[in-house]
Amino acid sequence: PLATNMATYQLGDHTLSISMGMYADNRRRLVERVRKAGCPDTGVAVFMGGKSLSRHDSDHEPLFRQESYFHWVFGVSEPDCYGTVDIASGESILFVPRLPAEYAVWMGKIHSTDHFKAKYEVDRVCYVDELATVLRSMHGGKPELLIMNGLNTDSKMMSVPVEFEGMGDFAVNKDILFHEIVECRVHKSPAEVDVMRYTNKISSLAHKEVMRHIRPGLYEYQLESVFRHYCYYNGGMRFQAYTCICGSGDNGATLHYGHSAAPNDKQVKDGDMCLFDMGSEYHCYASDITCSFPANGKFTENQKIIYNAVLKSNRAVLAQIKPGVSYKDMHRLADRIHCEELKAAGLLQGDVDEMMKAFIGTIFMPHGLGHLIGLDTHDVGGYTKGVERTDEPGLRSLRLGRVLEEGMVLTIEPGIYFIPMQIENALNNPEQARFLVPERIAEFEGFGGVRIEDNVYVSSEGGELLTQVPRTVEEIEALMAEECQ
Amino acid sequence: PLATNMATYQLGDHTLSISMGMYADNRRRLVERVRKAGCPDTGVAVFMGGKSLSRHDSDHEPLFRQESYFHWVFGVSEPDCYGTVDIASGESILFVPRLPAEYAVWMGKIHSTDHFKAKYEVDRVCYVDELATVLRSMHGGKPELLIMNGLNTDSKMMSVPVEFEGMGDFAVNKDILFHEIVECRVHKSPAEVDVMRYTNKISSLAHKEVMRHIRPGLYEYQLESVFRHYCYYNGGMRFQAYTCICGSGDNGATLHYGHSAAPNDKQVKDGDMCLFDMGSEYHCYASDITCSFPANGKFTENQKIIYNAVLKSNRAVLAQIKPGVSYKDMHRLADRIHCEELKAAGLLQGDVDEMMKAFIGTIFMPHGLGHLIGLDTHDVGGYTKGVERTDEPGLRSLRLGRVLEEGMVLTIEPGIYFIPMQIENALNNPEQARFLVPERIAEFEGFGGVRIEDNVYVSSEGGELLTQVPRTVEEIEALMAEECQ
Ligand SMILES: [Mn+2]
Ligand SMILES: [Mn+2]
Repeated sequence: PLATNMATYQLGDHTLSISMGMYADNRRRLVERVRKAGCPDTGVAVFMGGKSLSRHDSDHEPLFRQESYFHWVFGVSEPDCYGTVDIASGESILFVPRLPAEYAVWMGKIHSTDHFKAKYEVDRVCYVDELATVLRSMHGGKPELLIMNGLNTDSKMMSVPVEFEGMGDFAVNKDILFHEIVECRVHKSPAEVDVMRYTNKISSLAHKEVMRHIRPGLYEYQLESVFRHYCYYNGGMRFQAYTCICGSGDNGATLHYGHSAAPNDKQVKDGDMCLFDMGSEYHCYASDITCSFPANGKFTENQKIIYNAVLKSNRAVLAQIKPGVSYKDMHRLADRIHCEELKAAGLLQGDVDEMMKAFIGTIFMPHGLGHLIGLDTHDVGGYTKGVERTDEPGLRSLRLGRVLEEGMVLTIEPGIYFIPMQIENALNNPEQARFLVPERIAEFEGFGGVRIEDNVYVSSEGGELLTQVPRTVEEIEALMAEECQ
Repeated sequence: PLATNMATYQLGDHTLSISMGMYADNRRRLVERVRKAGCPDTGVAVFMGGKSLSRHDSDHEPLFRQESYFHWVFGVSEPDCYGTVDIASGESILFVPRLPAEYAVWMGKIHSTDHFKAKYEVDRVCYVDELATVLRSMHGGKPELLIMNGLNTDSKMMSVPVEFEGMGDFAVNKDILFHEIVECRVHKSPAEVDVMRYTNKISSLAHKEVMRHIRPGLYEYQLESVFRHYCYYNGGMRFQAYTCICGSGDNGATLHYGHSAAPNDKQVKDGDMCLFDMGSEYHCYASDITCSFPANGKFTENQKIIYNAVLKSNRAVLAQIKPGVSYKDMHRLADRIHCEELKAAGLLQGDVDEMMKAFIGTIFMPHGLGHLIGLDTHDVGGYTKGVERTDEPGLRSLRLGRVLEEGMVLTIEPGIYFIPMQIENALNNPEQARFLVPERIAEFEGFGGVRIEDNVYVSSEGGELLTQVPRTVEEIEALMAEECQ
């Protein structure tokens, strides 16, 4: 049975049309890998979609967003589904909940299984309550269920275990599926890269709109609102890939600013440097872009120094991107360039090789250089069998420790921040303090930070920059002088 | 120990300033009620705040929104807190998580307990890991913990049970707290009503902006985006109180349209009636407003007929609102007016008293007339001891079955919908079919529906209309002729 590749996902006629063939291709890739990994002849992969949730004990239902693995396999928007993929035949079956008659009054049309078969181009559609029965009809009643069982290397949490009525009757194999689907997600198909070009295009345009709109006196959250509105109204992007980080002034030095305890609530001041890290998602595919710029549209000399140092490391890494390059080396390269530039600007002193041994770069960039990106902002597979985290300052926080391979999409996001605790600790540590020029560094008190974050596709030829925002000082100043749209 | 009532919550200088004294007053009201309810001398209420969550096994953290009861008691924005209120003395203690040093790099300043004491004006602030120790220091080591234990009458779920390390050492009382705090939440204080005036003001202005903005050819979700942006940018309302319902054309007949399986994705057509049910929240206080209007700005005759029938029932109920009135009676009143108006318009025939006995109104309005509103959109306490749901069509779905009391805030949201399944069922039921005029009703195929939803405060004098949007046909047509802002 073959899918016909006619169905698409699209939100409005002005947004990207995604062929359901993309998901058929994902399943085909998965089946191929799982077979090669030594799957038993009777193997059937079983996936559990995300469940509808309530807020605490209330009837408030947060807007449903599909579980990422399930989305990758089936591209299904509805909650409470299951799905199977038979490894021997490649047959895919989607299981949808059987909805009560009242659903039609409150929630909308109750669609037939044929509707879902056409919408998602799977081979069959059944009801969730038929899952055990359907499985028993496969492989002479003795299928071996391949289920998810593995560690997310960013959250350090195990995958959500599949559960369904009657599951106890089947043999279960927890050893194959997780690793293979992670590797599939790591290596994006051309169609997936197209989606990420789109998410980057829209989020880039939204960042530009924010830069045109900003002026001292506005509040950070108002710029968050401008960004969200641009992406949804123009790009059909209903969700943010992550909570917007709109740090102005010293808030730029809080790496994950913007959450409920630090909710983008400062007034933007003349003279502030802004660090805005925002990205929306489209049909669950993320974007993750940081722009740094002066609130008033004109860089000061000190702002230029820090900005250009970070831009230099970003562009140096970008030029190196290609299969075979170690991202740990790229992290070290960025650190080295920061040290060189901060030395040239008089904030550091001494030998740069010695600085690297003393982890001086990490004082100013405590986070990792970047991460894989896809259906999750911090996408799966940043470490894999045989690739461990390096337990030293900086690299310890790097989410992508692998050698680059064709098909990866990743972020390059070097930054230099003036984080009071980091600088204080360094000044109190004789091994580090000797490289610092305290009186020059003191000029940057309250500066916040600069991060320049791009999303890049690793092709056989090199790195393709997906993000399209002004990056040089001149480009930024020119854009910010424009009227907003 | 007394709070000083100087601290406030505000997002930007152009939004509402909420005094922390509002929460001190909430606690005072709770203590008074719990004492009267026969609390033991050693009673200490213990509350667990909302926890930080992750999306499935990923490190994606949805933006935290406080648990509603905890918010009502403490007004605290941060996740992972606990709190206690000693009933005998009234002393309030907030317990905040002890944060690791890295928090300062990633998430922001680690605030002292003194900071939180000043920010929230509680009597003391301790760390969560001190909770059992602090409790043991009270009432000679033998406090009786009052904890939440009751049913949410909308979700049918039990309250989330409080849990903490060392809880097993204490005597626990599950019988008092839940009922008393629900009754406190049902009866809003003047300060709480002020907040709801504000949420209604901003959401009303946003609805007006949407009505100015809409034109055939746009997609429903673009209007959702206009609404969300207006509320956040102008009102500091980061969350929607519920998922936006932007039904145009026949989508207006899906009562809870807009969720992930029906995501506001239709193009708005010339001639469509629109039913937009949207409300934002400010510091967790909700608004819930529905406006119905023609997409092109001019009502047709049939649109006017249905619209005016619903407006008539809405205004008739509003005129009756005052303490002592049964909301079940109000629901029946709305149903009766709909029957009278639909008869006058030729869609129904026969005696209206007979129609009421045959539940004809429910065909066109399957939902309840309204609900309490506060920290949850469907707020707690719609039924209470001795007040049961009436098991008959229509009233079965009514979320507020009580006699009105001063201090309640509720919605009045009558509607008339042309829901294919409802009409088909009625035509197949001889008891109901005899009242229907099928050929006239057929004119409304694909019409969708009209809902007119206002938020109303029950004062001693009557109902105060909090919602401020154009409601008559003339007002709506005049507004929609304006340019958008
Ligand atoms: Mn990133
Ligand atoms: Mn409502």
